[in-house]
Amino acid sequence: MKFTKMHGLGNDYVYVSTFDQKEPADLGALAIAVSDRHFGIGSDGLIMITPSERADARMRMFNTDGTEGEMCGNGVRCVAKYVHDHGIAPRPRVTIETGRGVLTLDLEVEGGKARRVRVDMQTPILQAAKIPTTLPGEPPIDAPLTIEGHPLGVTAVSMGNPHAVVYVDDVTRFPVERFGPLLENHVTFPKRVNVHFAEVVGPGEVRMRTWERGSGITLACGTGACAVCVAGILTGRTGRKIIAHLPGGDLELEWPGDGQSVFMTGPATEVFSGEWPD
Amino acid sequence: MKFTKMHGLGNDYVYVSTFDQKEPADLGALAIAVSDRHFGIGSDGLIMITPSERADARMRMFNTDGTEGEMCGNGVRCVAKYVHDHGIAPRPRVTIETGRGVLTLDLEVEGGKARRVRVDMQTPILQAAKIPTTLPGEPPIDAPLTIEGHPLGVTAVSMGNPHAVVYVDDVTRFPVERFGPLLENHVTFPKRVNVHFAEVVGPGEVRMRTWERGSGITLACGTGACAVCVAGILTGRTGRKIIAHLPGGDLELEWPGDGQSVFMTGPATEVFSGEWPD
Repeated sequence: MKFTKMHGLGNDYVYVSTFDQKEPADLGALAIAVSDRHFGIGSDGLIMITPSERADARMRMFNTDGTEGEMCGNGVRCVAKYVHDHGIAPRPRVTIETGRGVLTLDLEVEGGKARRVRVDMQTPILQAAKIPTTLPGEPPIDAPLTIEGHPLGVTAVSMGNPHAVVYVDDVTRFPVERFGPLLENHVTFPKRVNVHFAEVVGPGEVRMRTWERGSGITLACGTGACAVCVAGILTGRTGRKIIAHLPGGDLELEWPGDGQSVFMTGPATEVFSGEWPD
Repeated sequence: MKFTKMHGLGNDYVYVSTFDQKEPADLGALAIAVSDRHFGIGSDGLIMITPSERADARMRMFNTDGTEGEMCGNGVRCVAKYVHDHGIAPRPRVTIETGRGVLTLDLEVEGGKARRVRVDMQTPILQAAKIPTTLPGEPPIDAPLTIEGHPLGVTAVSMGNPHAVVYVDDVTRFPVERFGPLLENHVTFPKRVNVHFAEVVGPGEVRMRTWERGSGITLACGTGACAVCVAGILTGRTGRKIIAHLPGGDLELEWPGDGQSVFMTGPATEVFSGEWPD
């Protein structure tokens, strides 16, 4: 089985295309095997790139535990780069079918290779019941929540997956590993939640660190950066266009306003290609 | 650059042969780049397989920080498998030049591929000054050392690199992450030391966990398992032939006696092959 290792801000997956080879049998088991960082290829999961009837390609994402995920903001940029660079859809605008519908992606191309990708991440979901959360507000904006005696202000947003955003004064020193899991599993989030702690650097700039649902601390979360952008606008902390500094690198985010899509721009990097024994 | 990813008990390296391609320029920088588990290939380091004037091949090992190491017990088994399986030395006995001299390795071959490898790991070094350690004894055997109020018995052995072996009652529950670094950097080991905590299961069987110098907790340490075998014999706890259960899998060790080599037998596994952009 041919594969390509790619990452977006260090969020790395094994990418397998079925445009030129047969689909392997058990994708969940394959995801578990290839993801292992000592005994396998090593990755945050497996992403299949397959033909689609509705778009240039379809993306299916499998986590390291073999479960299938809906979407991955860093992954879909890499899928767009793959279909462009490998000649499946050699155009500056491509469409990818995901668990959140068909997304449109615009590529910045240099020397025939896509370097950065702008993704229409669709409209944020702001109704509390659909996020879902039982915190007050539609959506909850700086909703007060006391965790182990510490008062936090939580803004909740869904980008297809649920996010809780907490602004703090100094995100570098904030104990993400302590408050992340407490918020992830808090009773006000019935489907648990991805947690982001963000610090305002300026009206167009934030620094953020993430505790991902089921994964813990990660280098970068694309949908989470979108949620931080929306939360910054809803709470009046930042403007409609920001740069977010994540541990794995930078993303540009833009939310023109209510009822409109969030746009995310960031790098997509091919690291190496390989052959996994069948 | 073509490479092969291999592991011995989860101790995984990127293997690059210069038998069929040019040697890359800066091997230290290459080791740092390929080892990164999110932005690179992901490994415990880089091992070069090059022609030798004294053996079937020469092995050079580079750590994740780019420094060159002398030897790696799990790595040399994989080098032997590589030179056998890839037709460089298609024989059941091969020789590999390492930082500890030329080693002789015997392969168990199934279907044309080496599965397990027996390595002559040469004689243990038992003089305190050469290990080096300032603990009393030649070598120090169950030398009493009190760490943060806890009395430990330390047996010190060099297999080309220094090892401290401490037998405990229940290695699974032993706080390796606490006592490992305290022993690694203890004043009685002027070049620091690899630390192994071992539990006797029977006269021919131990369970062990390792704190590696400069790396922390690892899945498997081949030279360390040899040191545990020697320490078990010197302290009268185990016989001359043992199975050691490491977190990454099992090794068989044998030390016929004073002045003789330690023999280590264990698996070597090829995971995938790939192409790293030059």
